[in-house]
Amino acid sequence: MKEEKEYVLGIDIGGTYTKLGLVNRNGDILANSFFDTQAQSSFSIFQKKIEKEISNLKSKLQKEQQLLAIGIGAPNANFNTGKMEHPPNFKWGDYVPITDSINRILDLPLTITNDANAAALGEMHFGMAKGMKDFVVLTLGTGLGSGLVSHGALITGANGMAGELGHVNVFPNGRQCNCGLKGCLETYASVTGIRRTVFELISEMNIESPLKKLSFKELSGQKISEAALNGDVIALKAFEYTGKILGSKMADTAAHLDPEAFILTGGLSNAGKILLDPIISSMEENLFNAYKKKIKVLISSSPSSNAVLGPAALAWQSLDSN
Amino acid sequence: MKEEKEYVLGIDIGGTYTKLGLVNRNGDILANSFFDTQAQSSFSIFQKKIEKEISNLKSKLQKEQQLLAIGIGAPNANFNTGKMEHPPNFKWGDYVPITDSINRILDLPLTITNDANAAALGEMHFGMAKGMKDFVVLTLGTGLGSGLVSHGALITGANGMAGELGHVNVFPNGRQCNCGLKGCLETYASVTGIRRTVFELISEMNIESPLKKLSFKELSGQKISEAALNGDVIALKAFEYTGKILGSKMADTAAHLDPEAFILTGGLSNAGKILLDPIISSMEENLFNAYKKKIKVLISSSPSSNAVLGPAALAWQSLDSN
Repeated sequence: MKEEKEYVLGIDIGGTYTKLGLVNRNGDILANSFFDTQAQSSFSIFQKKIEKEISNLKSKLQKEQQLLAIGIGAPNANFNTGKMEHPPNFKWGDYVPITDSINRILDLPLTITNDANAAALGEMHFGMAKGMKDFVVLTLGTGLGSGLVSHGALITGANGMAGELGHVNVFPNGRQCNCGLKGCLETYASVTGIRRTVFELISEMNIESPLKKLSFKELSGQKISEAALNGDVIALKAFEYTGKILGSKMADTAAHLDPEAFILTGGLSNAGKILLDPIISSMEENLFNAYKKKIKVLISSSPSSNAVLGPAALAWQSLDSN
Repeated sequence: MKEEKEYVLGIDIGGTYTKLGLVNRNGDILANSFFDTQAQSSFSIFQKKIEKEISNLKSKLQKEQQLLAIGIGAPNANFNTGKMEHPPNFKWGDYVPITDSINRILDLPLTITNDANAAALGEMHFGMAKGMKDFVVLTLGTGLGSGLVSHGALITGANGMAGELGHVNVFPNGRQCNCGLKGCLETYASVTGIRRTVFELISEMNIESPLKKLSFKELSGQKISEAALNGDVIALKAFEYTGKILGSKMADTAAHLDPEAFILTGGLSNAGKILLDPIISSMEENLFNAYKKKIKVLISSSPSSNAVLGPAALAWQSLDSN
């Protein structure tokens, strides 16, 4: 019974929304809330908003319920320094002191990592990676994020910035990436990547497609998925190309980590089998013998409303390791 | 003083020689020996030889000196199963039961891993990676082996076969690799790889070079290094090409692990600066922002006679974690 009295606060800071939740050791959410991050406004506005939300959530705790720790997932968050470093799409500065800022509101043990790392811990504690010790989570959204787990622990690296698989190279001098490099994996294997691929295919192929009616801004991952399900050749080819590239790079990641599974999450993963089939076939083709037919490729079943579970798992794991 | 009374037995099984040594916790070698592995003969011949060598070494221990454990480094050794799996250049079968075989001779706690993983532990306990928690060792010999360390522990993977960076892909449909895949990193960045590169350059360029007098069998890494040091254009270009490819793939590995350092060892690393300069320049060019100028690239200073230190470190680490 004691377990049900103990909670951690999970905070997921996204480019659009910030989500908070009180989560117990079993992954049950006692209470949660969210607010508009306003990443384009000043950081002090965010600070005021989150202070209010934290205070609201704390008031939901009964007397016998105890808040033990805080876990935060945020873009480009550095596990070691507690700062968001050069977060793209945020106007909060180059080094955002998230840890200090939250600890001023609530003085509890606090652990922070990037959103994809937090997602990996969420899968391990409460999701599809339960019982796994070695696996990789890929978040296929606007960009491509990744969380790598070995021996049941996140790989965090010497500078707290490990797991940036979105920036392994696919083609030297390939597509321009936001990060300044060219040919990064996330310029191909992400929602933005597949939109670029559709435009490339339209430019190369001379066939009809409903996607030709859409501007780049209008073209969503959802619309490409729908077109593919309706048999549109361009959309199908786009998924095939995306899966082929991602699968070959997953084979390279396997040669590093020998994972039990890759777990895919984020907008692009909603496409399901149309994406999964070319990924698996390309990965198997490129896998070193020792790994062939041994690695599962799964699509996460955790609903996106549970974005706070990852950060909460981070907090629980950090409590357990101390 | 107690420490000096405690030893482990380190065994390095190579394609040519097998080396054994009694090693204390400080990395001091009390006694060592080696013998011809005879990888092309039957496994039972090896068993008889190593039984004799182990018995000889044990007789060197004083009464108050105690042997605590065994560590083995061997090609394609599986950390989990204790077997060498499909070792190339060995005619001992597809699954060689090394652990069982050695434990029949000496019933002590035994840990086994592939030679490059053992080398990584040797560097961490007794070599250039002392004090490091996150780093990568690359052994550039006949092939390319690797040992990956995160949080001070070897990454071993779900099947005990992590760290096969020799088989990440450089070019789809590139050079044929022994493993059956095409374009693997070790077909470019290894002693064999640079020999292939020299032959490719000779076929493409129409200039004089002392290397043109040598057959593929005669062309050693040493001879390419010597030619490069004498200003031979083909040899210099071969090192540049090798370094460029290896450096770009090290940038991809950095995007996985955010390592403090890469430590290079094995025959090709003897070339020193001629190899190091193009590696560093290519790696930096391809590194994601978060890692630029933060990663050391070092050439191991451990003499090759100390091949038993890696396996010994494995034994010590395994004792400490139990």
